[in-house]
Amino acid sequence: MTTLKRIPGNARMSETVIHNGVAYLSGLLSSSPAGQDIREQTRNALAQADEVLKRAGSDKSRLLTAQIWLKDIANDFDGMNEEWMAWIDGNNLPTRATGEVLMSNPDFLVEIIFTAAVD
Amino acid sequence: MTTLKRIPGNARMSETVIHNGVAYLSGLLSSSPAGQDIREQTRNALAQADEVLKRAGSDKSRLLTAQIWLKDIANDFDGMNEEWMAWIDGNNLPTRATGEVLMSNPDFLVEIIFTAAVD
Amino acid sequence: MTTLKRIPGNARMSETVIHNGVAYLSGLLSSSPAGQDIREQTRNALAQADEVLKRAGSDKSRLLTAQIWLKDIANDFDGMNEEWMAWIDGNNLPTRATGEVLMSNPDFLVEIIFTAAVD
Repeated sequence: MTTLKRIPGNARMSETVIHNGVAYLSGLLSSSPAGQDIREQTRNALAQADEVLKRAGSDKSRLLTAQIWLKDIANDFDGMNEEWMAWIDGNNLPTRATGEVLMSNPDFLVEIIFTAAVD
Repeated sequence: MTTLKRIPGNARMSETVIHNGVAYLSGLLSSSPAGQDIREQTRNALAQADEVLKRAGSDKSRLLTAQIWLKDIANDFDGMNEEWMAWIDGNNLPTRATGEVLMSNPDFLVEIIFTAAVD
Repeated sequence: MTTLKRIPGNARMSETVIHNGVAYLSGLLSSSPAGQDIREQTRNALAQADEVLKRAGSDKSRLLTAQIWLKDIANDFDGMNEEWMAWIDGNNLPTRATGEVLMSNPDFLVEIIFTAAVD
């Protein structure tokens, strides 16, 4: 049986689970959403992604796919995309889908769910 | 060419598809949602998960990731989490993301999409 | 380190990323959504899927899983399903989950996110 590597998160979920060379990340949210606009929250979540990917033995050049949830896609799609473009490795783009989905706290404007390669 | 194993579901989708040691499950919904509250629907869906994972040759200790959809996240996040905590293997937590997404029938309060390891 | 194969999409995302025998596709949307009904948009997205899967070295008989987003699930679930049933390989059904999620442009009625086997 293949060993699963689980990087601890909180009581409900792992931060990352690694299996057969693939890292599955929990959805990333701003760590201090109150009062932040979409650009600040996206920057915060993507900065966390760098740390989470590093702990998993990966980095943003090895992303496979992303699902992005926005609280208000009509107003925040452009701001999220500006931060996405500033952060993403343009030579190693993941696939992506972006939709309007509410999160557990009304302060949250964006959540990003990544899958990445670790081998 | 690797063999895909497909466990039959209904006319539109398989219950589970297994490939390279990973089981992709269809979204799990309560089998009798009418009149059930969030805790009852979550328990029903998670009980089904045990059966579906078993048929796939896996179990809840081998979960990779979960996406959870709630009809009313403001009201039902806590109740879903209580059932989640009662069911999940605390030593083998998957990654997770939870958002507000309506399902095909207004009776449905929660849908859970799992990916699990089978090798 | 395993080589990732990335099929170019646009400036923000790849069309497909292939890793360890799995193809992760970006969400597929109608290429001309204005004025199209749900059946036309679903047909357009699924016709694109055929092309995208072919470029990835896969086809609809090798689908693993699908996530389907609808702008108006109460009104469009049946129409989407009719086109799904006309297109899908009934002997090789993927797993599936369908929910109501708004997309970046109000013209879009449906988005389909596929994962497929390529080996």
